[in-house]
Amino acid sequence: MLDEKILNVLRHNRDSYVSGEELCKLAGISRAAIWKHIEKLRLEGYDIEALPHLGYKLVAIPDSLIPSEIKWKLKTKVFGINVVSYRKVDSTNNIAYELAEKGMKEGTVILADEQLKGKGRHGRHWSSPSRGGIYMSCILRPSIAPNQISKITLLAAIAVAQAIRDFSSLEVTIKWPNDIMMDRKKLCGILTEMKAEQDSADFVVLGIGINVNSSIKHLPKGASSIMEELRHRGGKVNLSRVDLARRVLERLEEYYNLMKSEGFGPIIDIWKDLSVMIGSRVKVSLHGKTFEALAHDIDPDGALVVRTESGVLEKISSGDVAVIR
Amino acid sequence: MLDEKILNVLRHNRDSYVSGEELCKLAGISRAAIWKHIEKLRLEGYDIEALPHLGYKLVAIPDSLIPSEIKWKLKTKVFGINVVSYRKVDSTNNIAYELAEKGMKEGTVILADEQLKGKGRHGRHWSSPSRGGIYMSCILRPSIAPNQISKITLLAAIAVAQAIRDFSSLEVTIKWPNDIMMDRKKLCGILTEMKAEQDSADFVVLGIGINVNSSIKHLPKGASSIMEELRHRGGKVNLSRVDLARRVLERLEEYYNLMKSEGFGPIIDIWKDLSVMIGSRVKVSLHGKTFEALAHDIDPDGALVVRTESGVLEKISSGDVAVIR
Repeated sequence: MLDEKILNVLRHNRDSYVSGEELCKLAGISRAAIWKHIEKLRLEGYDIEALPHLGYKLVAIPDSLIPSEIKWKLKTKVFGINVVSYRKVDSTNNIAYELAEKGMKEGTVILADEQLKGKGRHGRHWSSPSRGGIYMSCILRPSIAPNQISKITLLAAIAVAQAIRDFSSLEVTIKWPNDIMMDRKKLCGILTEMKAEQDSADFVVLGIGINVNSSIKHLPKGASSIMEELRHRGGKVNLSRVDLARRVLERLEEYYNLMKSEGFGPIIDIWKDLSVMIGSRVKVSLHGKTFEALAHDIDPDGALVVRTESGVLEKISSGDVAVIR
Repeated sequence: MLDEKILNVLRHNRDSYVSGEELCKLAGISRAAIWKHIEKLRLEGYDIEALPHLGYKLVAIPDSLIPSEIKWKLKTKVFGINVVSYRKVDSTNNIAYELAEKGMKEGTVILADEQLKGKGRHGRHWSSPSRGGIYMSCILRPSIAPNQISKITLLAAIAVAQAIRDFSSLEVTIKWPNDIMMDRKKLCGILTEMKAEQDSADFVVLGIGINVNSSIKHLPKGASSIMEELRHRGGKVNLSRVDLARRVLERLEEYYNLMKSEGFGPIIDIWKDLSVMIGSRVKVSLHGKTFEALAHDIDPDGALVVRTESGVLEKISSGDVAVIR
């Protein structure tokens, strides 16, 4: 990747101009080829100044979910091992699923600036306005039985919630099983899909949609974005999607490794810390029926345990659950 | 389907010749077109006699897993609603999976005379010699959570075991979870694959491979065929794959409907009746470890419950289990 080599030389010399000669030497590239690569980087959104006698200088980097940005200083070994970026796709989950079927490695990440048919749970639409969000799908190949997939969803929820907390001052919380909320508004959704045999998952595709810089007017009712929530609170309004995407990958890897070494127990504990649901009254919608109950606990498999009005404990592993104010 | 209309007229008149004129009238086809369709049927293996002045007569039908044969007198409403047949494929499960992803209906059946890359559990090979077996994959769209997929496998096992019992005099049994056995030899394997979200299956592909007329010399060690087992016992040796395939579809529909109306309880009861495993000493191979135990029961989710040597009951939902003689 000659483009990336040139880029990295320029990144390491942000305060000064790098002469054409030096750039060629450091990047291991011929003088004749340099202009072509500089132009390619500019097309990707990098602002590179070129001055006669002085040379080249990286003036601004784009907030684009492209491999050269995502991988820059990314502190992971597996998550982001391959990064495939698109301006516009139907659904990053569909692309990741197809690539996984073709044998693409664990840790491969598909990113897009815009999704035309973003997918939510149960065939619902996930609104994915252009350049406002992070639309990301990761290929995982965990050694789990199909009934363990809830664990991956809960793991992803804590990774994303923690990454948003690392990245902003927002004390986001988790709504079972897979929504990241700020004051009852949804900032992020997670859709886990899997191909499995009877007793083992072949692969899991972890889809994550985060509303970052999206304007409230481009989002459906009940949703908000990190930027909108920060603005309400007088905070920063132009956020780096790249920084957050990297942080999400790092947190995913951290918790994925934690689960592999310590089991699912610590993940549930963190989940409970980040959730405001346990102990709340909730409305459960399940198989076309709706009932109220008390959210009692998360069981070791990741199901929500509720206490119904007749006092019985019931395990909820599908359906929708909303906290009653 | 004009071919099928002609075929059906001939089938209903197996004892006599049908004049060209009559055939055209009954099948609603022009005199000019008839020869082309007769030729096509002959290419599919139908032996149709044509005598001047007398007309046409169906002399013999092929034992081919083709739609016109499978659907003939098939007593199902859903299983076999679409039948797609191949001479030779890599894997019927792969084709069914692709079709299911494109939205193909529940009950669609893919059949092949030969599989080049027949699949067993966990990426193992399933030997699929030409014309000896039934290699069949069904698309199901049950409303189940991913952890219910074992139930579909167990349901398929009883359907196939019962169909083989209906079809032959062999008192085949089931080995948990998905093998149909005759005297410790494997006659049939089942591979269930699914695409699922966290809390609901999108579709299930039910792959069934049955060794029907296969010669023992074309089968791997430990396997046998219905024909070989009947021959040992002095029985019939040329078996109709079509008859058995139809019977399997009928039994699948019967038990699928039973599960939908009565739940999984009756399926487990039938499974227990058809299994010789419960009460036997077994060797369990799981996550690279092997231990002996007593097969104690099947739990309500379809997992095998064994009593280990220390007296503890343990739930086995993956791995391999063999009865110790």
